[in-house]
Amino acid sequence: MASGADHRAAAVVADIGLIGLAVMGQNLVLNMADHGYTVAVYNRTVSRVDRFVADEAAGNARVIGTHSVAELCERLRRPRKVMLLVKAGAPVDAFIEQLRPHLEPGDIIVDGGNSHFRDSSRRMKECAEQGRLLFVGCGVSGGEEGARHGPSLMPGGNPEAWPALRPILQAIAAHTDGEPCCEWVGEGGAGHFVKMVHNGIEYGDMQLISEAFDILHRGLGLSIDECSVVFARWNSGELDSYLIEITANILQYVDKETGRPMLELIQDRAQQKGTGRWTVESSLDHSVPVTLIAEAVFARMLSSMKEERLRASKMLRGPEQVPLPDGHERETLIESVRQALYASKIVSYAQGYMLMREAARAESWNLNYGGIALMWRGGCIIRSRFLGKIRDAFRADPELENLLLNRFFAEAVHAAQSHWRSVVAFAVGHGIPCPAFSTALAFYDGYRSERLPAYLLQAQRDYFGAHTYERVDRPAGQYFHTNWTGTGGQVTSNAYQA
Amino acid sequence: MASGADHRAAAVVADIGLIGLAVMGQNLVLNMADHGYTVAVYNRTVSRVDRFVADEAAGNARVIGTHSVAELCERLRRPRKVMLLVKAGAPVDAFIEQLRPHLEPGDIIVDGGNSHFRDSSRRMKECAEQGRLLFVGCGVSGGEEGARHGPSLMPGGNPEAWPALRPILQAIAAHTDGEPCCEWVGEGGAGHFVKMVHNGIEYGDMQLISEAFDILHRGLGLSIDECSVVFARWNSGELDSYLIEITANILQYVDKETGRPMLELIQDRAQQKGTGRWTVESSLDHSVPVTLIAEAVFARMLSSMKEERLRASKMLRGPEQVPLPDGHERETLIESVRQALYASKIVSYAQGYMLMREAARAESWNLNYGGIALMWRGGCIIRSRFLGKIRDAFRADPELENLLLNRFFAEAVHAAQSHWRSVVAFAVGHGIPCPAFSTALAFYDGYRSERLPAYLLQAQRDYFGAHTYERVDRPAGQYFHTNWTGTGGQVTSNAYQA
Repeated sequence: MASGADHRAAAVVADIGLIGLAVMGQNLVLNMADHGYTVAVYNRTVSRVDRFVADEAAGNARVIGTHSVAELCERLRRPRKVMLLVKAGAPVDAFIEQLRPHLEPGDIIVDGGNSHFRDSSRRMKECAEQGRLLFVGCGVSGGEEGARHGPSLMPGGNPEAWPALRPILQAIAAHTDGEPCCEWVGEGGAGHFVKMVHNGIEYGDMQLISEAFDILHRGLGLSIDECSVVFARWNSGELDSYLIEITANILQYVDKETGRPMLELIQDRAQQKGTGRWTVESSLDHSVPVTLIAEAVFARMLSSMKEERLRASKMLRGPEQVPLPDGHERETLIESVRQALYASKIVSYAQGYMLMREAARAESWNLNYGGIALMWRGGCIIRSRFLGKIRDAFRADPELENLLLNRFFAEAVHAAQSHWRSVVAFAVGHGIPCPAFSTALAFYDGYRSERLPAYLLQAQRDYFGAHTYERVDRPAGQYFHTNWTGTGGQVTSNAYQA
Repeated sequence: MASGADHRAAAVVADIGLIGLAVMGQNLVLNMADHGYTVAVYNRTVSRVDRFVADEAAGNARVIGTHSVAELCERLRRPRKVMLLVKAGAPVDAFIEQLRPHLEPGDIIVDGGNSHFRDSSRRMKECAEQGRLLFVGCGVSGGEEGARHGPSLMPGGNPEAWPALRPILQAIAAHTDGEPCCEWVGEGGAGHFVKMVHNGIEYGDMQLISEAFDILHRGLGLSIDECSVVFARWNSGELDSYLIEITANILQYVDKETGRPMLELIQDRAQQKGTGRWTVESSLDHSVPVTLIAEAVFARMLSSMKEERLRASKMLRGPEQVPLPDGHERETLIESVRQALYASKIVSYAQGYMLMREAARAESWNLNYGGIALMWRGGCIIRSRFLGKIRDAFRADPELENLLLNRFFAEAVHAAQSHWRSVVAFAVGHGIPCPAFSTALAFYDGYRSERLPAYLLQAQRDYFGAHTYERVDRPAGQYFHTNWTGTGGQVTSNAYQA
């Protein structure tokens, strides 16, 4: 290291730096290198740097290992671009702190982790204030495979960073129909917000697939093998998507040791990392009824109560045994399950878009809804043919109020609804839980109701708490109170604020 | 006012002070006076003090108007006890600030508003540190009527305050079976937490009643009058409760102006004040699937999207018209709706208790679950015969893991389940939204499932993100990864934390 200065002077100059060499980070590095970018890499546990350079990146001249944050920054072309792929939360702030002394005004920090959008919003401000650094919170989806061969990228934050980042991010992103699945989302935390909604929708999609599988397997008595055939078939139609495809693959995977379907060996305790929960919290903040994702999050929680469920299963009985449907009825029901899944999925995406619309209004983001569908169209976990239809809907009408009010989707739901209703009724009768299918249907029926029984609820609130109500025959914003019992006073609870 | 000092010297000494003379505050004051307590009252808009003393409290020697916080405090017997019935949030902190200079160590501040339990927790600490004041966050339920004639009171906070508060709070509280519906809940924010869960359950109960009514009215074609008769009948059985009772009353209330059922004139845009939403947030924080309250909160949000629903109702179609059921079938279905309501309600309370148990574990509160049922048994909005059964269940087994695992409730749900399933199927087939009925049923079926399809979900997570899974044939806590495609690496996403 005595010749360190010489060594550095002779060093290759890198186009971008990447910190955090877990599977996502490693694969993004290899992806960037594939596209002709030289990447300097660093990891907190530095032995991992050497292992990566010697192993997965062996012989790749575009991957340069470094052993400190300082060394990483020295290697970077200006404006320096450093991408963080570290655990969300404190580690991101810690690395920003470590990077700051080695960066100059105009240098760019990109956080590619699963950060909360409020943190990204804060970090953009802090970076701008302290050292005039340009911070970008970039949603990355696509798992290992996506990161390696083309992820969906959702960058938001300081817009001054975009021109310098754009070539590299759009190069490594997935492409569909010749367009990159990466576009600028908006200021502050907009990128991570859209990524959060993506993840919430992913929770919903996975829950819908699980329910469909459960009805086929437990309800209709199809074997895991038979289910695999059904999902593979579904993947060639409207449901064509990555998650349906991998479900078919998973269902046919046989454990080499035991010769049994791998699935039978997997514990039914679903884990989660928080982005689904964040989506639900955000829906509560914005008063948007994102019911399907909420049920998906709750279903994971219930699944993780394994021991209690075991005890409950011994004590709580289901419906009387119903004979399995025969051949023809079975075929009909399999098709109905497909339609129920499709209709429920439309509702879930409609709810996700409702949330983005409300958040954009509150945060003054100018979201491009069709562009978001395009970003999700390829590369990410929820990629599907379906998202092309959503892009089309927003291209045809950028001001579209709700996906369900687009003619294509309205017709699709209408065509599916008798199947959808019969599947929910079947599951309910057979004791198979389908919280996501049924909440989607309840939402659809509520959304299309001109008049909901909420008027009874408003009457109750006025009865017991003098909370007042609006009348159908008077303008909105005028509040009335009825002295229902003849004994209460005329003071309303609005006076509470006096 | 020249003789102010003499005037004060001669002044009546009050047992307690109350700040905030909206309907709840006024009625609590009159309730306290009825029980022999002298109450000094104050309101930020002081004209309201004079109006109250001259009007609702006319001639009541036990009610003493004051015109400043200082004057209020001077009137109080030591240790001074001041109860706040002001809007939750900043006003509570502002009044604590105003009170502080006029109070001494050992004096007591009781916040009877709908404060968030975290605020109460913080205020208890701040009051103890600044001036050694004893802070109590007290949940108050029962609406106007309850406040006037006996509310349910849920006090928690600084336990040193309890001996001095106990006589007055237990005197004014509702009583059932000779016991006051008021008992010490726990430290910090425990009182307001239990009140929050109470309110969440209230949201659930109201939603369940609205759905039952909607199925009767829109689904079975019963007139509002006929519905009133049904609810009145229900109130004499297992469902006997305040909310069922007032629903029957509301349904038969005729608008004097128009001669029409009052309900028809009320707008179907439900409002909310936040405690339902807080309950759902808390359930997310503690990973407890409180699905029914969540659906109730979302249903209110959907109801408030009135204009969008109107547009949607013109575009989105429901199921084909089905003929109304005839006499006998109708009677059977009415009874089934009652059973569905009862079973769903059991699930909702079970979920609420699950949340309290998790929160108590996290916050180290030693909650008395039977005592909570007793507090809710009378005085409050959710008061019911049913809560007596919950109290019995926890008296028989204070360690009861889940209400659904109590023999009485397990049998009750089992007896109701065929009705419950047929009602959900009926509503689904007729296009009547019943999100709370159906989520309760999905929860029941999930909770009693030894094996849920979450294993498919875990396989998906491992497939696309190398998130690993547990195996049924290996101990919990051991995580495995499958190289599903044969192309992914062996690096799991747990390494993300490296």
